[in-house]
Amino acid sequence: MAHPDLNELAAFAAELADVAGPIIREHFRTALAVESKADESPVTVADRGVEKRLRELIEARFPDHGIAGEEFGLKAPDADYVWSLDPIDGTKAFITGRPTFGTLIAVTERKAPLLGVIDCPILDERWIGGPGLPTTLNGQPVSPRPARALAEATLATTSPHMFRQGWELTAFERLRAEVRLPMYGGDCHNYGLVALGTIDLVVEADLKDYDYLAPAAVIAGAGGLVTDWDGVPVGLGSTSRVLAARTPELHAEALKRLQG
Amino acid sequence: MAHPDLNELAAFAAELADVAGPIIREHFRTALAVESKADESPVTVADRGVEKRLRELIEARFPDHGIAGEEFGLKAPDADYVWSLDPIDGTKAFITGRPTFGTLIAVTERKAPLLGVIDCPILDERWIGGPGLPTTLNGQPVSPRPARALAEATLATTSPHMFRQGWELTAFERLRAEVRLPMYGGDCHNYGLVALGTIDLVVEADLKDYDYLAPAAVIAGAGGLVTDWDGVPVGLGSTSRVLAARTPELHAEALKRLQG
Repeated sequence: MAHPDLNELAAFAAELADVAGPIIREHFRTALAVESKADESPVTVADRGVEKRLRELIEARFPDHGIAGEEFGLKAPDADYVWSLDPIDGTKAFITGRPTFGTLIAVTERKAPLLGVIDCPILDERWIGGPGLPTTLNGQPVSPRPARALAEATLATTSPHMFRQGWELTAFERLRAEVRLPMYGGDCHNYGLVALGTIDLVVEADLKDYDYLAPAAVIAGAGGLVTDWDGVPVGLGSTSRVLAARTPELHAEALKRLQG
Repeated sequence: MAHPDLNELAAFAAELADVAGPIIREHFRTALAVESKADESPVTVADRGVEKRLRELIEARFPDHGIAGEEFGLKAPDADYVWSLDPIDGTKAFITGRPTFGTLIAVTERKAPLLGVIDCPILDERWIGGPGLPTTLNGQPVSPRPARALAEATLATTSPHMFRQGWELTAFERLRAEVRLPMYGGDCHNYGLVALGTIDLVVEADLKDYDYLAPAAVIAGAGGLVTDWDGVPVGLGSTSRVLAARTPELHAEALKRLQG
Protein backbone atom coordinates (compact mmCIF):
# COMPACT_ATOMS: atom_id res chain seq x y z
CA MET A 1 0.00 0.00 0.00
CA ALA A 2 1.39 3.40 -1.02
CA HIS A 3 2.29 5.72 1.80
CA PRO A 4 -0.21 8.60 1.49
CA ASP A 5 1.01 12.15 1.67
CA LEU A 6 0.19 13.67 5.07
CA ASN A 7 -0.85 17.05 3.71
CA GLU A 8 -3.06 15.39 1.12
CA LEU A 9 -4.67 13.30 3.85
CA ALA A 10 -5.21 16.39 5.98
CA ALA A 11 -6.80 18.31 3.13
CA PHE A 12 -9.09 15.36 2.40
CA ALA A 13 -10.01 14.97 6.08
CA ALA A 14 -10.94 18.66 6.12
CA GLU A 15 -13.15 18.08 3.08
CA LEU A 16 -14.89 15.30 4.99
CA ALA A 17 -15.55 17.68 7.89
CA ASP A 18 -16.87 20.22 5.39
CA VAL A 19 -19.39 17.62 4.24
CA ALA A 20 -20.38 16.58 7.77
CA GLY A 21 -21.00 20.06 9.19
CA PRO A 22 -24.04 21.12 7.17
CA ILE A 23 -25.80 17.77 7.67
CA ILE A 24 -25.29 18.02 11.43
CA ARG A 25 -26.31 21.66 11.68
CA GLU A 26 -29.53 20.91 9.84
CA HIS A 27 -30.61 18.48 12.58
CA PHE A 28 -29.39 20.41 15.65
CA ARG A 29 -32.15 21.41 18.10
CA THR A 30 -34.89 20.07 15.85
CA ALA A 31 -36.46 17.82 18.50
CA LEU A 32 -36.62 17.35 22.22
CA ALA A 33 -33.91 15.54 24.09
CA VAL A 34 -35.53 12.31 25.01
CA GLU A 35 -37.45 11.58 21.83
CA SER A 36 -34.08 11.94 20.16
CA LYS A 37 -33.03 8.53 21.38
CA ALA A 38 -35.56 6.76 19.18
CA ASP A 39 -34.38 5.20 15.97
CA GLU A 40 -35.46 7.88 13.57
CA SER A 41 -34.46 10.73 15.87
CA PRO A 42 -32.57 13.73 14.48
CA VAL A 43 -29.36 12.62 16.14
CA THR A 44 -29.56 9.15 14.61
CA VAL A 45 -30.50 10.52 11.21
CA ALA A 46 -27.62 12.98 11.29
CA ASP A 47 -25.16 10.40 12.65
CA ARG A 48 -25.97 7.85 9.97
CA GLY A 49 -26.34 10.38 7.19
CA VAL A 50 -22.88 11.76 7.88
CA GLU A 51 -21.14 8.42 8.26
CA LYS A 52 -22.70 7.00 5.11
CA ARG A 53 -21.56 9.99 3.07
CA LEU A 54 -18.05 10.04 4.55
CA ARG A 55 -17.58 6.32 3.91
CA GLU A 56 -18.56 6.78 0.28
CA LEU A 57 -16.05 9.59 -0.12
CA ILE A 58 -13.26 7.64 1.59
CA GLU A 59 -13.97 4.49 -0.44
CA ALA A 60 -13.87 6.49 -3.67
CA ARG A 61 -10.61 8.25 -2.80
CA PHE A 62 -8.73 5.56 -0.87
CA PRO A 63 -10.29 2.21 -1.86
CA ASP A 64 -7.63 0.17 -0.09
CA HIS A 65 -7.95 1.98 3.26
CA GLY A 66 -9.94 0.46 6.09
CA ILE A 67 -12.83 2.24 7.82
CA ALA A 68 -13.96 1.94 11.44
CA GLY A 69 -17.15 3.91 11.98
CA GLU A 70 -19.38 4.32 14.99
CA GLU A 71 -22.56 3.61 13.05
CA PHE A 72 -21.66 1.13 10.30
CA GLY A 73 -18.79 -0.84 11.80
CA LEU A 74 -15.59 -2.12 10.28
CA LYS A 75 -14.22 -2.37 6.77
CA ALA A 76 -10.75 -3.89 6.38
CA PRO A 77 -9.68 -3.08 9.95
CA ASP A 78 -6.30 -4.71 9.33
CA ALA A 79 -5.39 -2.40 6.44
CA ASP A 80 -2.24 -0.31 6.97
CA TYR A 81 -4.37 2.83 6.92
CA VAL A 82 -7.73 2.87 8.66
CA TRP A 83 -10.13 5.81 8.94
CA SER A 84 -11.91 6.16 12.25
CA LEU A 85 -15.21 8.07 12.15
CA ASP A 86 -17.47 9.38 14.89
CA PRO A 87 -20.00 11.63 13.16
CA ILE A 88 -21.43 13.10 16.38
CA ASP A 89 -19.20 12.64 19.40
CA GLY A 90 -21.19 13.97 22.35
CA THR A 91 -24.65 12.65 21.53
CA LYS A 92 -25.99 13.82 24.88
CA ALA A 93 -24.76 17.34 24.20
CA PHE A 94 -26.31 17.26 20.74
CA ILE A 95 -29.72 16.15 21.96
CA THR A 96 -29.77 18.70 24.78
CA GLY A 97 -28.87 21.60 22.50
CA ARG A 98 -25.29 22.06 23.67
CA PRO A 99 -22.77 23.07 21.01
CA THR A 100 -19.77 21.18 22.45
CA PHE A 101 -20.27 17.98 20.45
CA GLY A 102 -18.17 17.39 17.36
CA THR A 103 -17.27 15.22 14.41
CA LEU A 104 -14.14 13.13 14.99
CA ILE A 105 -12.16 11.89 12.01
CA ALA A 106 -8.84 10.08 12.35
CA VAL A 107 -6.47 8.18 10.13
CA THR A 108 -4.43 5.44 11.75
CA GLU A 109 -1.24 3.98 10.32
CA ARG A 110 -0.75 0.39 11.44
CA LYS A 111 -3.17 1.17 14.28
CA ALA A 112 -1.39 4.32 15.54
CA PRO A 113 -3.02 7.77 15.17
CA LEU A 114 -1.47 9.52 12.18
CA LEU A 115 -3.87 12.42 11.70
CA GLY A 116 -6.95 13.71 13.47
CA VAL A 117 -9.74 16.22 13.01
CA ILE A 118 -11.93 17.56 15.82
CA ASP A 119 -14.64 19.59 14.14
CA CYS A 120 -17.27 21.41 16.23
CA PRO A 121 -19.71 22.60 13.57
CA ILE A 122 -21.87 24.82 15.78
CA LEU A 123 -18.85 26.47 17.41
CA ASP A 124 -17.12 26.79 14.05
CA GLU A 125 -13.93 25.39 15.53
CA ARG A 126 -11.83 22.81 13.74
CA TRP A 127 -8.58 21.33 14.95
CA ILE A 128 -6.41 19.30 12.56
CA GLY A 129 -3.07 17.75 13.41
CA GLY A 130 -1.01 14.67 14.07
CA PRO A 131 2.35 13.47 15.34
CA GLY A 132 3.95 14.65 12.09
CA LEU A 133 1.68 17.60 11.37
CA PRO A 134 1.63 20.64 13.69
CA THR A 135 -1.91 21.15 14.92
CA THR A 136 -3.98 24.07 13.70
CA LEU A 137 -7.25 25.57 14.96
CA ASN A 138 -9.21 26.99 12.02
CA GLY A 139 -6.01 27.05 10.02
CA GLN A 140 -3.95 28.91 12.63
CA PRO A 141 -1.09 27.03 14.34
CA VAL A 142 -1.69 26.40 18.04
CA SER A 143 1.58 27.42 19.66
CA PRO A 144 2.97 25.01 22.24
CA ARG A 145 2.67 26.40 25.77
CA PRO A 146 5.04 25.85 28.67
CA ALA A 147 4.27 22.99 31.00
CA ARG A 148 2.31 23.72 34.13
CA ALA A 149 2.68 21.77 37.36
CA LEU A 150 -0.07 19.37 38.38
CA ALA A 151 -1.02 21.55 41.36
CA GLU A 152 -1.77 24.41 38.94
CA ALA A 153 -3.53 22.32 36.32
CA THR A 154 -7.06 22.27 34.95
CA LEU A 155 -8.59 18.80 34.55
CA ALA A 156 -11.67 18.19 32.41
CA THR A 157 -13.96 15.16 32.34
CA THR A 158 -17.29 15.05 30.56
CA SER A 159 -19.03 13.23 33.42
CA PRO A 160 -17.94 11.54 36.66
CA HIS A 161 -20.41 8.79 35.75
CA MET A 162 -18.00 7.68 33.01
CA PHE A 163 -16.08 5.95 35.79
CA ARG A 164 -18.42 3.01 36.11
CA GLN A 165 -16.06 0.76 37.99
CA GLY A 166 -15.19 1.60 41.57
CA TRP A 167 -11.44 1.45 40.97
CA GLU A 168 -11.78 3.84 38.03
CA LEU A 169 -13.59 6.40 40.16
CA THR A 170 -11.03 5.98 42.93
CA ALA A 171 -8.17 6.59 40.49
CA PHE A 172 -9.93 9.63 39.02
CA GLU A 173 -10.63 11.10 42.46
CA ARG A 174 -6.99 10.60 43.43
CA LEU A 175 -5.89 12.66 40.44
CA ARG A 176 -8.68 15.22 40.83
CA ALA A 177 -7.61 15.93 44.40
CA GLU A 178 -4.20 17.07 43.12
CA VAL A 179 -5.24 19.56 40.45
CA ARG A 180 -6.23 23.17 40.84
CA LEU A 181 -9.42 23.18 38.81
CA PRO A 182 -11.57 20.14 38.00
CA MET A 183 -14.15 20.83 35.28
CA TYR A 184 -17.04 18.75 33.96
CA GLY A 185 -18.90 18.60 30.67
CA GLY A 186 -17.26 19.71 27.46
CA ASP A 187 -17.24 16.54 25.36
CA CYS A 188 -14.66 16.30 22.55
CA HIS A 189 -14.21 20.08 22.66
CA ASN A 190 -12.16 19.48 25.84
CA TYR A 191 -9.49 17.71 23.80
CA GLY A 192 -9.29 20.62 21.39
CA LEU A 193 -8.74 22.91 24.38
CA VAL A 194 -5.88 20.69 25.54
CA ALA A 195 -4.26 21.24 22.13
CA LEU A 196 -4.94 24.95 22.54
CA GLY A 197 -3.41 24.89 26.03
CA THR A 198 -6.36 26.33 27.97
CA ILE A 199 -7.13 22.93 29.52
CA ASP A 200 -4.21 20.88 30.83
CA LEU A 201 -5.60 17.40 31.32
CA VAL A 202 -8.54 15.24 30.27
CA VAL A 203 -9.24 11.92 31.98
CA GLU A 204 -12.05 9.75 30.70
CA ALA A 205 -13.26 6.16 30.71
CA ASP A 206 -15.97 4.09 29.05
CA LEU A 207 -14.76 5.24 25.60
CA LYS A 208 -14.54 3.61 22.19
CA ASP A 209 -11.50 4.10 19.99
CA TYR A 210 -13.32 6.52 17.68
CA ASP A 211 -13.73 8.77 20.75
CA TYR A 212 -10.00 9.21 21.31
CA LEU A 213 -8.07 8.54 18.09
CA ALA A 214 -8.68 11.97 16.56
CA PRO A 215 -8.03 13.75 19.89
CA ALA A 216 -4.81 11.75 20.33
CA ALA A 217 -3.53 12.88 16.92
CA VAL A 218 -4.58 16.51 17.43
CA ILE A 219 -2.96 16.68 20.87
CA ALA A 220 0.24 14.98 19.62
CA GLY A 221 0.49 17.67 16.92
CA ALA A 222 0.38 20.29 19.68
CA GLY A 223 3.17 18.70 21.71
CA GLY A 224 0.92 16.81 24.13
CA LEU A 225 0.33 13.14 24.83
CA VAL A 226 -2.68 10.80 25.03
CA THR A 227 -2.27 7.34 26.52
CA ASP A 228 -4.31 4.73 28.30
CA TRP A 229 -4.16 4.54 32.09
CA ASP A 230 -1.07 2.33 31.89
CA GLY A 231 0.80 5.02 29.99
CA VAL A 232 0.62 3.20 26.64
CA PRO A 233 -0.08 5.51 23.66
CA VAL A 234 -3.59 4.88 22.36
CA GLY A 235 -4.27 3.14 19.06
CA LEU A 236 -7.04 1.48 17.08
CA GLY A 237 -9.08 -0.61 19.53
CA SER A 238 -6.48 -0.29 22.25
CA THR A 239 -8.38 0.82 25.36
CA SER A 240 -11.48 2.43 26.89
CA ARG A 241 -9.67 4.75 29.31
CA VAL A 242 -7.54 7.73 28.37
CA LEU A 243 -5.31 10.33 29.96
CA ALA A 244 -4.65 13.36 27.73
CA ALA A 245 -2.11 16.00 28.71
CA ARG A 246 -0.72 19.21 27.26
CA THR A 247 2.85 18.07 27.76
CA PRO A 248 4.61 14.75 28.35
CA GLU A 249 5.95 16.12 31.66
CA LEU A 250 2.50 16.88 33.01
CA HIS A 251 1.28 13.56 31.65
CA ALA A 252 3.91 11.71 33.68
CA GLU A 253 2.90 13.56 36.85
CA ALA A 254 -0.81 12.89 36.29
CA LEU A 255 -0.25 9.23 35.42
CA LYS A 256 1.52 8.66 38.74
CA ARG A 257 -1.51 9.98 40.64
CA LEU A 258 -3.94 8.00 38.50
CA GLN A 259 -2.02 4.82 39.22
CA GLY A 260 -1.86 5.55 42.97
CA MET B 1 -40.74 55.76 41.58
CA ALA B 2 -42.31 55.58 38.13
CA HIS B 3 -43.15 52.12 36.88
CA PRO B 4 -40.81 51.56 33.94
CA ASP B 5 -42.17 50.16 30.70
CA LEU B 6 -41.20 46.50 30.32
CA ASN B 7 -40.39 46.72 26.63
CA GLU B 8 -38.26 49.80 27.22
CA LEU B 9 -36.41 47.96 30.01
CA ALA B 10 -35.88 44.95 27.74
CA ALA B 11 -34.55 47.11 24.91
CA PHE B 12 -32.18 48.86 27.31
CA ALA B 13 -31.02 45.55 28.83
CA ALA B 14 -30.25 44.34 25.30
CA GLU B 15 -28.20 47.49 24.73
CA LEU B 16 -26.23 46.66 27.88
CA ALA B 17 -25.51 43.18 26.53
CA ASP B 18 -24.43 44.77 23.23
CA VAL B 19 -21.89 46.82 25.18
CA ALA B 20 -20.65 43.87 27.24
CA GLY B 21 -20.10 41.42 24.37
CA PRO B 22 -17.23 43.11 22.54
CA ILE B 23 -15.31 43.80 25.77
CA ILE B 24 -15.60 40.16 26.77
CA ARG B 25 -14.72 38.77 23.35
CA GLU B 26 -11.59 40.90 23.27
CA HIS B 27 -10.26 39.14 26.39
CA PHE B 28 -11.36 35.57 25.64
CA ARG B 29 -8.50 33.03 25.32
CA THR B 30 -5.85 35.73 25.69
CA ALA B 31 -4.03 34.04 28.57
CA LEU B 32 -3.61 30.69 30.22
CA ALA B 33 -6.13 29.37 32.69
CA VAL B 34 -4.36 29.63 35.96
CA GLU B 35 -2.58 32.92 35.52
CA SER B 36 -6.05 34.28 34.81
CA LYS B 37 -6.88 34.21 38.48
CA ALA B 38 -4.39 36.96 39.27
CA ASP B 39 -5.67 40.46 39.80
CA GLU B 40 -4.90 41.92 36.42
CA SER B 41 -5.87 38.79 34.54
CA PRO B 42 -7.98 38.99 31.36
CA VAL B 43 -11.05 37.65 33.16
CA THR B 44 -10.78 40.24 35.92
CA VAL B 45 -10.11 43.05 33.49
CA ALA B 46 -13.09 42.03 31.36
CA ASP B 47 -15.34 41.49 34.38
CA ARG B 48 -14.59 44.89 35.87
CA GLY B 49 -14.49 46.71 32.57
CA VAL B 50 -17.96 45.45 31.68
CA GLU B 51 -19.53 46.09 35.06
CA LYS B 52 -18.09 49.61 35.30
CA ARG B 53 -19.46 50.51 31.88
CA LEU B 54 -22.89 48.94 32.51
CA ARG B 55 -23.23 50.74 35.86
CA GLU B 56 -22.48 54.06 34.18
CA LEU B 57 -25.13 53.42 31.55
CA ILE B 58 -27.74 52.33 34.12
CA GLU B 59 -27.01 55.29 36.39
CA ALA B 60 -27.38 57.67 33.46
CA ARG B 61 -30.64 56.14 32.27
CA PHE B 62 -32.31 55.13 35.55
CA PRO B 63 -30.67 57.21 38.29
CA ASP B 64 -33.14 56.10 40.96
CA HIS B 65 -32.69 52.36 40.30
CA GLY B 66 -30.49 50.25 42.54
CA ILE B 67 -27.57 48.17 41.25
CA ALA B 68 -26.21 44.90 42.64
CA GLY B 69 -23.10 43.88 40.77
CA GLU B 70 -20.68 41.00 41.23
CA GLU B 71 -17.61 43.21 41.08
CA PHE B 72 -18.57 46.57 42.59
CA GLY B 73 -21.25 45.70 45.10
CA LEU B 74 -24.50 47.40 46.00
CA LYS B 75 -26.05 50.73 45.18
CA ALA B 76 -29.47 51.45 46.69
CA PRO B 77 -30.37 47.76 47.14
CA ASP B 78 -33.72 48.74 48.68
CA ALA B 79 -34.89 50.68 45.63
CA ASP B 80 -38.08 49.37 43.99
CA TYR B 81 -36.09 48.46 40.89
CA VAL B 82 -32.64 46.96 41.22
CA TRP B 83 -30.35 45.84 38.39
CA SER B 84 -28.38 42.67 39.02
CA LEU B 85 -25.18 42.28 37.01
CA ASP B 86 -22.82 39.37 36.52
CA PRO B 87 -20.50 40.37 33.68
CA ILE B 88 -18.95 36.92 33.27
CA ASP B 89 -20.96 34.12 34.80
CA GLY B 90 -18.86 30.98 34.39
CA THR B 91 -15.41 32.33 35.16
CA LYS B 92 -13.92 28.85 35.07
CA ALA B 93 -15.34 28.29 31.59
CA PHE B 94 -13.99 31.66 30.45
CA ILE B 95 -10.48 31.01 31.69
CA THR B 96 -10.36 27.52 30.19
CA GLY B 97 -11.50 28.67 26.77
CA ARG B 98 -15.04 27.27 26.93
CA PRO B 99 -17.76 29.35 25.27
CA THR B 100 -20.59 28.48 27.69
CA PHE B 101 -20.07 31.44 30.04
CA GLY B 102 -22.31 34.46 29.71
CA THR B 103 -23.30 37.90 30.85
CA LEU B 104 -26.29 37.91 33.21
CA ILE B 105 -28.40 41.04 33.52
CA ALA B 106 -31.60 41.17 35.54
CA VAL B 107 -34.04 43.78 36.76
CA THR B 108 -35.86 43.06 39.99
CA GLU B 109 -39.06 44.75 41.09
CA ARG B 110 -39.34 44.83 44.88
CA LYS B 111 -36.77 42.01 44.92
CA ALA B 112 -38.61 39.72 42.45
CA PRO B 113 -37.16 38.99 38.98
CA LEU B 114 -38.95 41.20 36.45
CA LEU B 115 -36.71 40.81 33.42
CA GLY B 116 -33.58 38.85 32.58
CA VAL B 117 -30.94 38.57 29.90
CA ILE B 118 -28.63 35.58 29.41
CA ASP B 119 -26.12 36.63 26.79
CA CYS B 120 -23.45 34.17 25.61
CA PRO B 121 -21.23 36.40 23.48
CA ILE B 122 -19.04 33.68 21.98
CA LEU B 123 -22.01 31.46 21.11
CA ASP B 124 -23.97 34.46 19.81
CA GLU B 125 -27.00 33.38 21.82
CA ARG B 126 -29.08 35.83 23.79
CA TRP B 127 -32.19 35.03 25.78
CA ILE B 128 -34.40 37.85 27.03
CA GLY B 129 -37.63 37.42 28.98
CA GLY B 130 -39.50 37.71 32.22
CA PRO B 131 -42.74 36.77 33.97
CA GLY B 132 -44.57 39.38 31.89
CA LEU B 133 -42.48 39.19 28.75
CA PRO B 134 -42.42 36.01 26.64
CA THR B 135 -38.83 34.82 26.32
CA THR B 136 -36.97 35.11 23.05
CA LEU B 137 -33.71 33.58 21.85
CA ASN B 138 -31.97 35.96 19.45
CA GLY B 139 -35.28 37.72 18.93
CA GLN B 140 -37.26 34.55 18.15
CA PRO B 141 -39.94 33.43 20.63
CA VAL B 142 -39.10 30.16 22.39
CA SER B 143 -42.31 28.16 22.14
CA PRO B 144 -43.43 26.44 25.32
CA ARG B 145 -42.98 22.69 25.15
CA PRO B 146 -45.15 20.03 26.76
CA ALA B 147 -44.09 18.81 30.18
CA ARG B 148 -42.00 15.69 30.39
CA ALA B 149 -42.10 13.25 33.29
CA LEU B 150 -39.20 13.18 35.73
CA ALA B 151 -38.17 9.71 34.59
CA GLU B 152 -37.68 11.08 31.05
CA ALA B 153 -36.01 14.31 32.08
CA THR B 154 -32.56 15.77 31.48
CA LEU B 155 -30.91 17.35 34.52
CA ALA B 156 -27.93 19.71 34.21
CA THR B 157 -25.53 20.86 36.92
CA THR B 158 -22.30 22.70 36.25
CA SER B 159 -20.33 20.67 38.79
CA PRO B 160 -21.14 18.13 41.49
CA HIS B 161 -18.62 19.99 43.64
CA MET B 162 -21.14 22.84 43.97
CA PHE B 163 -22.81 20.69 46.61
CA ARG B 164 -20.32 21.46 49.35
CA GLN B 165 -22.47 20.31 52.21
CA GLY B 166 -23.16 16.63 52.65
CA TRP B 167 -26.94 17.07 52.80
CA GLU B 168 -26.87 19.09 49.58
CA LEU B 169 -25.04 16.31 47.75
CA THR B 170 -27.41 13.73 49.19
CA ALA B 171 -30.44 15.72 48.01
CA PHE B 172 -28.90 16.18 44.55
CA GLU B 173 -28.06 12.48 44.24
CA ARG B 174 -31.62 11.57 45.24
CA LEU B 175 -32.98 13.68 42.39
CA ARG B 176 -30.28 12.60 39.93
CA ALA B 177 -31.17 8.94 40.49
CA GLU B 178 -34.69 9.64 39.21
CA VAL B 179 -33.93 11.39 35.90
CA ARG B 180 -33.07 9.88 32.57
CA LEU B 181 -30.02 11.93 31.72
CA PRO B 182 -27.79 13.79 34.20
CA MET B 183 -25.41 16.23 32.51
CA TYR B 184 -22.51 18.28 33.88
CA GLY B 185 -20.84 21.52 32.83
CA GLY B 186 -22.72 24.11 30.84
CA ASP B 187 -22.72 27.13 33.16
CA CYS B 188 -25.46 29.74 32.62
CA HIS B 189 -26.06 28.40 29.13
CA ASN B 190 -27.90 25.50 30.83
CA TYR B 191 -30.61 27.90 32.01
CA GLY B 192 -31.07 29.22 28.50
CA LEU B 193 -31.53 25.62 27.32
CA VAL B 194 -34.24 25.12 29.99
CA ALA B 195 -36.06 28.10 28.46
CA LEU B 196 -35.53 26.52 25.04
CA GLY B 197 -36.83 23.19 26.32
CA THR B 198 -33.84 21.02 25.40
CA ILE B 199 -32.84 20.69 29.07
CA ASP B 200 -35.58 20.00 31.62
CA LEU B 201 -34.02 20.73 34.98
CA VAL B 202 -31.07 22.55 36.50
CA VAL B 203 -30.13 22.05 40.15
CA GLU B 204 -27.31 24.09 41.62
CA ALA B 205 -25.94 25.30 44.94
CA ASP B 206 -23.25 27.65 46.19
CA LEU B 207 -24.71 30.49 44.07
CA LYS B 208 -25.05 34.23 44.50
CA ASP B 209 -28.25 36.01 43.52
CA TYR B 210 -26.68 37.49 40.37
CA ASP B 211 -26.17 33.88 39.21
CA TYR B 212 -29.88 33.03 39.20
CA LEU B 213 -31.97 36.22 38.90
CA ALA B 214 -31.60 36.57 35.13
CA PRO B 215 -32.12 32.82 34.57
CA ALA B 216 -35.23 32.93 36.79
CA ALA B 217 -36.76 35.71 34.68
CA VAL B 218 -35.83 34.09 31.36
CA ILE B 219 -37.24 30.72 32.42
CA ALA B 220 -40.43 32.32 33.81
CA GLY B 221 -40.96 33.98 30.42
CA ALA B 222 -40.79 30.53 28.81
CA GLY B 223 -43.38 29.00 31.15
CA GLY B 224 -40.92 27.44 33.58
CA LEU B 225 -40.13 27.99 37.24
CA VAL B 226 -37.02 28.70 39.34
CA THR B 227 -37.19 28.41 43.11
CA ASP B 228 -34.94 27.67 46.04
CA TRP B 229 -34.85 24.15 47.46
CA ASP B 230 -37.86 24.94 49.66
CA GLY B 231 -39.96 25.77 46.61
CA VAL B 232 -39.89 29.53 47.23
CA PRO B 233 -39.47 31.60 44.05
CA VAL B 234 -36.03 33.20 44.00
CA GLY B 235 -35.46 36.91 44.53
CA LEU B 236 -32.76 39.42 45.30
CA GLY B 237 -30.50 37.89 47.96
CA SER B 238 -32.93 35.10 48.68
CA THR B 239 -30.90 31.88 48.53
CA SER B 240 -27.79 30.06 47.35
CA ARG B 241 -29.55 26.93 46.03
CA VAL B 242 -31.85 26.75 43.03
CA LEU B 243 -34.09 24.32 41.22
CA ALA B 244 -35.01 25.40 37.70
CA ALA B 245 -37.59 23.51 35.66
CA ARG B 246 -39.20 23.77 32.23
CA THR B 247 -42.68 23.53 33.70
CA PRO B 248 -44.27 23.97 37.13
CA GLU B 249 -45.46 20.34 36.99
CA LEU B 250 -41.98 18.96 36.49
CA HIS B 251 -40.70 21.39 39.11
CA ALA B 252 -43.12 19.96 41.68
CA GLU B 253 -42.01 16.40 40.90
CA ALA B 254 -38.33 17.32 41.13
CA LEU B 255 -38.76 19.31 44.34
CA LYS B 256 -40.30 16.29 46.06
CA ARG B 257 -37.23 14.20 45.25
CA LEU B 258 -34.84 16.96 46.27
CA GLN B 259 -36.57 17.23 49.64
CA GLY B 260 -36.55 13.47 50.16
